[in-house]
Amino acid sequence: MYSFKNDYSEGAHPRILNALLETNMEQDEGYGEDRYSRKAIELIKGKIGTEDVDIHFISGGTQTNLIAISAFLRPHEAAIAVSSGHILGHETGAIEATGHKILSVVGENGKLSPSDLQGVLDGHPDEHMVKPKLVYISSSTEIGSIYSKSELQNLHDFCQRNQLILYMDGARLGSALCSEENDLQLSDLPNLVDAFYIGGTKNGALIGEALVICRDSLKEDFRYHIKQKGALLAKGRLLGIQFLELFRDNLFFELASHANKMAGRIREELVKSNITFLTHSPSNQIFPILPNAVISKLQNNYAFHIWEKVDSDSSAIRFVTSWATKEEEVTSLIEDLKRIL
Amino acid sequence: MYSFKNDYSEGAHPRILNALLETNMEQDEGYGEDRYSRKAIELIKGKIGTEDVDIHFISGGTQTNLIAISAFLRPHEAAIAVSSGHILGHETGAIEATGHKILSVVGENGKLSPSDLQGVLDGHPDEHMVKPKLVYISSSTEIGSIYSKSELQNLHDFCQRNQLILYMDGARLGSALCSEENDLQLSDLPNLVDAFYIGGTKNGALIGEALVICRDSLKEDFRYHIKQKGALLAKGRLLGIQFLELFRDNLFFELASHANKMAGRIREELVKSNITFLTHSPSNQIFPILPNAVISKLQNNYAFHIWEKVDSDSSAIRFVTSWATKEEEVTSLIEDLKRIL
Amino acid sequence: MYSFKNDYSEGAHPRILNALLETNMEQDEGYGEDRYSRKAIELIKGKIGTEDVDIHFISGGTQTNLIAISAFLRPHEAAIAVSSGHILGHETGAIEATGHKILSVVGENGKLSPSDLQGVLDGHPDEHMVKPKLVYISSSTEIGSIYSKSELQNLHDFCQRNQLILYMDGARLGSALCSEENDLQLSDLPNLVDAFYIGGTKNGALIGEALVICRDSLKEDFRYHIKQKGALLAKGRLLGIQFLELFRDNLFFELASHANKMAGRIREELVKSNITFLTHSPSNQIFPILPNAVISKLQNNYAFHIWEKVDSDSSAIRFVTSWATKEEEVTSLIEDLKRIL
Amino acid sequence: MYSFKNDYSEGAHPRILNALLETNMEQDEGYGEDRYSRKAIELIKGKIGTEDVDIHFISGGTQTNLIAISAFLRPHEAAIAVSSGHILGHETGAIEATGHKILSVVGENGKLSPSDLQGVLDGHPDEHMVKPKLVYISSSTEIGSIYSKSELQNLHDFCQRNQLILYMDGARLGSALCSEENDLQLSDLPNLVDAFYIGGTKNGALIGEALVICRDSLKEDFRYHIKQKGALLAKGRLLGIQFLELFRDNLFFELASHANKMAGRIREELVKSNITFLTHSPSNQIFPILPNAVISKLQNNYAFHIWEKVDSDSSAIRFVTSWATKEEEVTSLIEDLKRIL
Repeated sequence: MYSFKNDYSEGAHPRILNALLETNMEQDEGYGEDRYSRKAIELIKGKIGTEDVDIHFISGGTQTNLIAISAFLRPHEAAIAVSSGHILGHETGAIEATGHKILSVVGENGKLSPSDLQGVLDGHPDEHMVKPKLVYISSSTEIGSIYSKSELQNLHDFCQRNQLILYMDGARLGSALCSEENDLQLSDLPNLVDAFYIGGTKNGALIGEALVICRDSLKEDFRYHIKQKGALLAKGRLLGIQFLELFRDNLFFELASHANKMAGRIREELVKSNITFLTHSPSNQIFPILPNAVISKLQNNYAFHIWEKVDSDSSAIRFVTSWATKEEEVTSLIEDLKRIL
Repeated sequence: MYSFKNDYSEGAHPRILNALLETNMEQDEGYGEDRYSRKAIELIKGKIGTEDVDIHFISGGTQTNLIAISAFLRPHEAAIAVSSGHILGHETGAIEATGHKILSVVGENGKLSPSDLQGVLDGHPDEHMVKPKLVYISSSTEIGSIYSKSELQNLHDFCQRNQLILYMDGARLGSALCSEENDLQLSDLPNLVDAFYIGGTKNGALIGEALVICRDSLKEDFRYHIKQKGALLAKGRLLGIQFLELFRDNLFFELASHANKMAGRIREELVKSNITFLTHSPSNQIFPILPNAVISKLQNNYAFHIWEKVDSDSSAIRFVTSWATKEEEVTSLIEDLKRIL
Repeated sequence: MYSFKNDYSEGAHPRILNALLETNMEQDEGYGEDRYSRKAIELIKGKIGTEDVDIHFISGGTQTNLIAISAFLRPHEAAIAVSSGHILGHETGAIEATGHKILSVVGENGKLSPSDLQGVLDGHPDEHMVKPKLVYISSSTEIGSIYSKSELQNLHDFCQRNQLILYMDGARLGSALCSEENDLQLSDLPNLVDAFYIGGTKNGALIGEALVICRDSLKEDFRYHIKQKGALLAKGRLLGIQFLELFRDNLFFELASHANKMAGRIREELVKSNITFLTHSPSNQIFPILPNAVISKLQNNYAFHIWEKVDSDSSAIRFVTSWATKEEEVTSLIEDLKRIL
Repeated sequence: MYSFKNDYSEGAHPRILNALLETNMEQDEGYGEDRYSRKAIELIKGKIGTEDVDIHFISGGTQTNLIAISAFLRPHEAAIAVSSGHILGHETGAIEATGHKILSVVGENGKLSPSDLQGVLDGHPDEHMVKPKLVYISSSTEIGSIYSKSELQNLHDFCQRNQLILYMDGARLGSALCSEENDLQLSDLPNLVDAFYIGGTKNGALIGEALVICRDSLKEDFRYHIKQKGALLAKGRLLGIQFLELFRDNLFFELASHANKMAGRIREELVKSNITFLTHSPSNQIFPILPNAVISKLQNNYAFHIWEKVDSDSSAIRFVTSWATKEEEVTSLIEDLKRIL
């Protein structure tokens, strides 16, 4: 039984484990002030193309989201998210637990547009309601879509005009940036968003996300917030060493490209068989709509999520590929699909 | 320059890294539901001697404290801690950030007694004040002391009589249990405290603490709290594999014993030289009071914390040893002490 | 310009002010422990028909909602509300500010049904999502509708079966209970809901709501929560004296009946003119849909809210009547409507 | 049995009740946007001598403190208070419930000095601890002392130099400003503190405190915070009308002067009898140390708090006088003291 359930089923890329081994017995400072973390930050700044950002390593995505959003907002301010946004339905109310409401918007294909945001602002005119302040987006999104550069530019411009903070959840940023449909560079992001994070957990690391704060006014005292939420690891080197390895060369992008390529092969085969998809997703998650009988047969050999019922005879399922997905298992899945469909 | 600053200056015990390597490419469930975590939980239950506890793996100490305490308390209830307690002054208000006041008590040698607790209860008679509800203790404590079995029994009895929750921070529980002065077994704890954690980070792991919930009424829905605070790792196996290795045999205790032994050698030498100590600490942290001139000389070769000024000529410093402390470095320190003192 | 904008445009019923005057210089205990508050509680228990409830006086509706809901829930638990629910969009995120998410449901005519609740439960199966726990309803609702006894019974039964807390916001409970369509008694409520409040502010008091806690497990330590949220008035007598006067005889119900009667007269006239309504609202708020030209003319003499645009030519407006609405002003409005429509 | 227990045992000054009666049936806007509140704000600005402050009316002291402090601070920032400070021990953890730690300082005679603050700053150097940010003081203090102009000036200067916010709890500000030892004007305050409140509840109002925000950066969006904490009264006129009456002429100061005068008469008599006091308190609260036998006799005719045990034979008690304290009852107490002492 091979699993296409998610992109965190294995450990870490072997180079990362080797890096941990090699540095293991060297003594260094705690709490992220070690030389590996400092070096990793410099490397990432190089890839982003600016020194004018602050970078912090945090263990996971929910933790990064809750620390960033609660640090950026005053008590009466709210986040805006598309209805499929991870913070809305899959983080156990983590944002609300820090005191902030999330305003849900329907959006389109998992993405927000300026007109969505205008609607929220129009509906929140005064102090009897929360004040919408932070726009939460993900790329790639929870349903596999990605933001184009012009879509981001439009959101950015709207946010600037309306004093909104634009924050991007990059749990799968690697996959987005390596998508065939992508026209965005990592170095574009500081000009387009106020803060974002580069996901490690779902792209080859054991744990770890790199939060990048671009807007100066959001940088102050940020380590206090990490510590207060219990996220300042004593052995912060664990995070630094991993990101050092991911960004020492192009490993981060190679891993994401592999994941996308594997999803692409499956997608291609499904398209050939005239299978349709629930969403347009040029990344490492795809959502084909399959007859329930087909799904049952596939379940004999593969693990995956049944995403939602589409009609009485068919459902959308989710296939997720990753840096660790094996070529031969994809080939095997494709063969099986050919046979079953 | 060798560091005695803390017990998290190195990576992990090599056996732990090897275990990570060996299991690395096996696919498994996320969020702590993998077979390694499940197996580790069973092993620890075996060591504790009861199936009737719930065990959760969490990344670090501050995180464990804030999740446990905020899950256990209702909004108007407060924690009680000794003034040197870690949650009071070294966690950036993490507990208060979840809404709960911590009531500070002077205590003695870093420890609380029933009469300390009685004083707090007497001072909080009605709804104009918070309701004291949870007693926070550490063992070994922040200043190296340990609770004896009878001290714990007395606290336990007092807490039972007064409907208080007794919670033990075990960041350095290994060191406490392996102290020469210890008369407590790991298997005694479920009868003495309502919840405690077994610290991994400071005893050989990369990260990880094992929270053990003993009292039934505190167990319900606990994973929701872990997730809400951003602490449910996607690759929860990272924690499970480490604890599996630590408790597969006696590694956990061997590592703590080594740390204690190293501190013991330094202590012994200092005692021989008639050096006095700030606290009575039969564990892996010792606090000798040294002339400032001696401290300056030591700083040439060793890193350590200057804990507090004692008088115009001398200060207490802190030496911390760990599983990773090298025998030869301790020998070298002892030689230097002999020479300097 | 006479105002039909809301039910809090005037001060208090004259009998209430007189009661404040008469008792003014008598010394009494602070913080709601005065004889007036105690007596008022006894009177209300008499009207409710049971001694087995706890009653607390709190200044306003948002305050009552946030204190009750945050006291009743554990950190990971959420409230469920219909999308027009007051706590969702008109309390500036007060509930989220205490850490709890509110799950929004479309509902029907401002009301929730068991099938709505079942849908929420189905969508929240595990610890990656909040745990739905408290059902928030209002009667009369924010759009003027009321719950029938059987509707409440069905909700109650569903909540019992699913370990949910049923909480009723009674800011306009007087109006609901005195509606011509009502089949519910105040004394039915302890058997149907776990907690509710009797609104004073919108029914003749200067300020004040009486929170009634019916379920035993929700009663403990409740005054701590009131105090912690800043709502335990030093001169709590201010609230007690008002409720004493409202419930000394039938004043509370007489005032609500007057409000309903005034709304009824306006409704009747509109129906005669074949005007339709946005909602079915047999209480003191009505939402007629009027041509924009008519609305403009009415605005010359009357203040009211334009509730929502219906089509390019017409909008729904809201008329609210109260204990203080003058008969002659209603007559005048009716005359004007006859003339304009 | 006449009560000297506190300054909120009666209702409101008769002029205030009359003002409520006279305006009762006039329709006006809700939520503090009525003409009375607006007029009261203008009057108070006149007394303060500047238009450049924002004023908000809030029901009570704990509520004002928690709204102000939580609005002014970011999540990692803490308040500093003297150990007798009201927010520390008498508000049921209201500040911590909004997420902020309060750092306790011993101080002197209920007051803080720059050297106290320096000590706190020195002890909180980095992100492992909260960041001290807001200095909470009261005048008159919880033990009856008052801040002199130069003391306040020194605190102000220290706070400016160290980017601290200086906030004054003025629950008994009237009593402080009318003390014989006072050298401060209401109009001095905007130059000395960043925010303060003028207490109405303990100086003749039914309920109500007027929060005055002096520093521009603290003013933004403040009404959102009031609403979110449930403190924006629908009938906000209730607060506005009362402050309008208190500040229409000098009523506010006359009432405070009466309270002080009554306390002064009792103090004078005790001094004559060589009674000593627990604190130096030139305001409406005094804390004489009396033999327990004397206390027992006084308890036959008077209600008051026993503040603390001083030695085996004597205790400090608290006498509080107010605007409502009757001259003849003070005379009677003095006669009784003469007889008993």
